[in-house]
Amino acid sequence: MNKYLVFGHQNPDTDTIASAIVMSDYLTQLGHESEPVALGTPNDETQFMLNYFKLNAPRVVETVANETDRVALVDHNESQQSVADLKDVRVDYVVDHHKIGDFETAHPMYLRIEPVGCTATILYKMFNEKDLTISKEIAGAMVSAIISDTLLFKSPTCTQEDIDAAQALAKLADIDLEAYGLDFLRAGTNVASRSDSDILNADAKIFEMGPKTVRIGQVNVIGFDEILARKKDLVNLLEKERQDNNLVVSILVVTDILENDSIGFVVGDGAEGVQKAFDQSVVDNQFDLPGVVSRKTQIVPQLTEVFSQE
Amino acid sequence: MNKYLVFGHQNPDTDTIASAIVMSDYLTQLGHESEPVALGTPNDETQFMLNYFKLNAPRVVETVANETDRVALVDHNESQQSVADLKDVRVDYVVDHHKIGDFETAHPMYLRIEPVGCTATILYKMFNEKDLTISKEIAGAMVSAIISDTLLFKSPTCTQEDIDAAQALAKLADIDLEAYGLDFLRAGTNVASRSDSDILNADAKIFEMGPKTVRIGQVNVIGFDEILARKKDLVNLLEKERQDNNLVVSILVVTDILENDSIGFVVGDGAEGVQKAFDQSVVDNQFDLPGVVSRKTQIVPQLTEVFSQE
Repeated sequence: MNKYLVFGHQNPDTDTIASAIVMSDYLTQLGHESEPVALGTPNDETQFMLNYFKLNAPRVVETVANETDRVALVDHNESQQSVADLKDVRVDYVVDHHKIGDFETAHPMYLRIEPVGCTATILYKMFNEKDLTISKEIAGAMVSAIISDTLLFKSPTCTQEDIDAAQALAKLADIDLEAYGLDFLRAGTNVASRSDSDILNADAKIFEMGPKTVRIGQVNVIGFDEILARKKDLVNLLEKERQDNNLVVSILVVTDILENDSIGFVVGDGAEGVQKAFDQSVVDNQFDLPGVVSRKTQIVPQLTEVFSQE
Repeated sequence: MNKYLVFGHQNPDTDTIASAIVMSDYLTQLGHESEPVALGTPNDETQFMLNYFKLNAPRVVETVANETDRVALVDHNESQQSVADLKDVRVDYVVDHHKIGDFETAHPMYLRIEPVGCTATILYKMFNEKDLTISKEIAGAMVSAIISDTLLFKSPTCTQEDIDAAQALAKLADIDLEAYGLDFLRAGTNVASRSDSDILNADAKIFEMGPKTVRIGQVNVIGFDEILARKKDLVNLLEKERQDNNLVVSILVVTDILENDSIGFVVGDGAEGVQKAFDQSVVDNQFDLPGVVSRKTQIVPQLTEVFSQE
């Protein structure tokens, strides 16, 4: 049998990169040959974690079937968020915390999806259930993923299981949760050094919502000023990329990780849907999302419901 | 919130009935209101277990949305094997050991599918992971489900995890695995008392295989003589029901649980597929399946591959 390639979603975030590294370690400890790979390069936040814990960035791949016949997916399950040639390999494992997309297999496999804040929280349980060793580096990757996905436990997606896992992992990783967590999150908010294209694409995901293909990106900031100063360029590029990719709607969510508020930029046929979903008017392509930090629970279900009724 | 209704697939077998009872106990112990229900009445084998452990047969329901807005699925995930109005309720849990069908949700939920022999084996792990109490009756339901799905560990679907779980559960249920197991399996092989329709439908499942809708039923026996004596009537009714239900192919697999061999009856446009999938000629609607006992791993994937290429 070929080795497992383990990877998360396109436009990788910390949970996707960390969970690929962690799941690969899990499979290795179970006696399989395995390598973590990624569908893109790490963002600034993720790179902070990799540097801190002296972990290598996973090798970037475009396709997998040229290398192996079996894979493990982490932090995603929808094929449009995955590798281009997913249909040409056998998916033996899925560990995820998102809604189930259009997923189908010909064989029974290991699929574990739980409504927790972070994929790494599920992986932490899987390590414990099999009494596997959690090294300092692996613990560091897991706790960073939890901090990232839950915004240091402030996201509504955060569960008690995430908190319990993070506290136990912080000890194994030898870090102070609050101090490391803020440094790590801040590393992901430096938009000044990033191009417009990178801000739009770094954490963008595509969703099928009823008849509409909708892209939603998200970027973390501390204060909205820098982003608002670049709004015109960002909205123009958002619209250009929407047309280039035949998307009906494209949205960028900008989240202030200290204030726990967001604003959104929207292009395409989405203003009415945004109005219905969030009770917020779209003015000049922009709308408020007060108290919203989680794309997964505070944005995607609400828009899906509105667009599915169209 | 309404109470959870917990149920397995149509034409319930022991794993489906047992796992609904067990999962409902799991949810109750976690503080939820919950009731196991079923999409049909227990078969003879399942009734033996219910009588032995003094468990009530789950209430039979036709629909669920008239009673609740949230459900837990066990031992299945494909909507065509589920309750008719599944789309009108929210699926919060799926615990299963089958391939993933066309499954999609709008919300993150708890979905756990593992490639083990029996749903109850996964549930046993879930009880242990949360340190929940396993009563004698619940242990009896779980161990019976494992014996049923693995044919007392002789099916190729059986894993070490199933064996380990069954041995631990047998102690909690206060039974001798071999003695109870054979009595229990024998209770399900009494075809003399069953109508042709019951034999065809008791454990029938519908699968979408490429362009074809295929129904595959399975019946356990000790020796093929009684079934072969009724073959003409069984095949005629199989064909009538195939036409009535607009199925392309319909198959009945007859499995000798002591010899670990099967034969099949096939009607509709399936003879060529059977030939390709199993390298067995169909003569007079009948074919041999030497050494085959598992529909899930020895029949469905092979037929799916052949029919998907058509």
